[in-house]
Amino acid sequence: MLIQRLTVIGVGLIGGSLARALKQANQCAEIVGCGRNVENLEQAVELKVIDRYETNLAIAVQGADVVVIAVPLGTIAKTFSVIQPVLQPQAIVTDVGSAKACVVADARQYLGDHLSHFVPGHPIAGSEKTGVIASKVDLFVKRRVILTPLAETNQNAYATICKMWQATGAEVVEMAIAHHDKVLAATSHLPHLLAYSLVDTLAQMETKSEVFRFAAGGFRDFTRIAASDPQMWHDICLANKDALLEVLQLFNQDLQQLTQAIAENDSPMVMDMFKRAKAARDKFVG
Amino acid sequence: MLIQRLTVIGVGLIGGSLARALKQANQCAEIVGCGRNVENLEQAVELKVIDRYETNLAIAVQGADVVVIAVPLGTIAKTFSVIQPVLQPQAIVTDVGSAKACVVADARQYLGDHLSHFVPGHPIAGSEKTGVIASKVDLFVKRRVILTPLAETNQNAYATICKMWQATGAEVVEMAIAHHDKVLAATSHLPHLLAYSLVDTLAQMETKSEVFRFAAGGFRDFTRIAASDPQMWHDICLANKDALLEVLQLFNQDLQQLTQAIAENDSPMVMDMFKRAKAARDKFVG
Repeated sequence: MLIQRLTVIGVGLIGGSLARALKQANQCAEIVGCGRNVENLEQAVELKVIDRYETNLAIAVQGADVVVIAVPLGTIAKTFSVIQPVLQPQAIVTDVGSAKACVVADARQYLGDHLSHFVPGHPIAGSEKTGVIASKVDLFVKRRVILTPLAETNQNAYATICKMWQATGAEVVEMAIAHHDKVLAATSHLPHLLAYSLVDTLAQMETKSEVFRFAAGGFRDFTRIAASDPQMWHDICLANKDALLEVLQLFNQDLQQLTQAIAENDSPMVMDMFKRAKAARDKFVG
Repeated sequence: MLIQRLTVIGVGLIGGSLARALKQANQCAEIVGCGRNVENLEQAVELKVIDRYETNLAIAVQGADVVVIAVPLGTIAKTFSVIQPVLQPQAIVTDVGSAKACVVADARQYLGDHLSHFVPGHPIAGSEKTGVIASKVDLFVKRRVILTPLAETNQNAYATICKMWQATGAEVVEMAIAHHDKVLAATSHLPHLLAYSLVDTLAQMETKSEVFRFAAGGFRDFTRIAASDPQMWHDICLANKDALLEVLQLFNQDLQQLTQAIAENDSPMVMDMFKRAKAARDKFVG
């Protein structure tokens, strides 16, 4: 068995799905859940996602050999500072945060000697749904999990977290921290920001009720991510600010070019852009 | 039977689905397809979507009591000018274009005396897929079809087109032309423009292959509409330019505000905006 006692801090969509998958793969002797929402934790026990729960963070991690932090990015620093003094010497800590430079900076500040046993991670899986009720045993099957180890990262700790994710059916990929943050800003954080922004613009229009009444399937798909947890995405946008603002600037330049082309009836330019975009989507996304 | 001979100009997703639905509802004695792509028309006959086809437009509409124009917006004016001299006196003409002011302007210019028998229409249904192969008998079931009649529109012609769409399972809604164009610019044309623009931005990044490789389900949904037909959306963006540029300006203002809030770490402002957007999407789109 890979893990004797796993403590999952934040038993939501990601934490809950990880617990389910590791139980099914018989990789954990015991799974302890921790969080602030007791109702959610009780539900997690009822659903057999975790074996038991503990609301006190310092107690929850005692005796754990692996601790998974699956809380919004904005609360990771505090989590590190509370658990650091009580972790077992060889306990491995990992996280699932959607931005990595900020988490690593927090780890350097708050994990002390435990930094070598911290493995920064990010499973590329999710949904606009939240809470343990949304968790699924197969959420990570055939999905990618990015690990961004530090120079200091202990090899055994890294290998254990690799095996942990592989046991859920995921493919583990190693990536440099800054590269991760840039790629994810483009592919995930910017789309969320645009979807929130568009829905908010439309909600402020005087024809609001009409606008939404006549929305078709394309709009539904396009804005699905705007139904995601505001706290989680608030944290991500602020935590990955630099990379996000950089890709946002590129996007704004392209959007201004396209706007101008439409305003000037520049038919070939509009056509070329739409053709390029369709070709890229057909090729890469499928 | 509602229609003796229906001519569908453009037997693609929309034209093909309408033909299928009217056949199933037994509302047409004969359906003639017309288009430039002979392969697609032959497929439409094989699939029994249409009874026969005719590639010559002027011949295709002869003897038709209803003519449905389901071609890209940019070719509607030419279509009007070719069919006007050969239409039966009482033949009803309707279209399915995604913008209406431009189509009505074309109709006023090219339909002559036939203007009173033109009923501008727009079924709010679609997909990123194209061609008769993508057509479905139930595409319009429980979907809305917007009709934007003119002061000159003949009541019987309007009633026939109403019944035609109702026979497909759709709900018919009447709307003023300018209002239609404004609502659809917000809810359909702008999202398509943003999706094309985002995919194009990402496709130009040096980390292109990585960016798309690590795209998750949210990105897939968000950019699905960027796989739509470039010609169709090129035509829509230029045809509905004024309304589109207006809502684009509102969107840009909101996006700039949000960008500034992120740059300045204005946490409450980011949080409020995401919360407002999620609430609007949860309430209106569901």
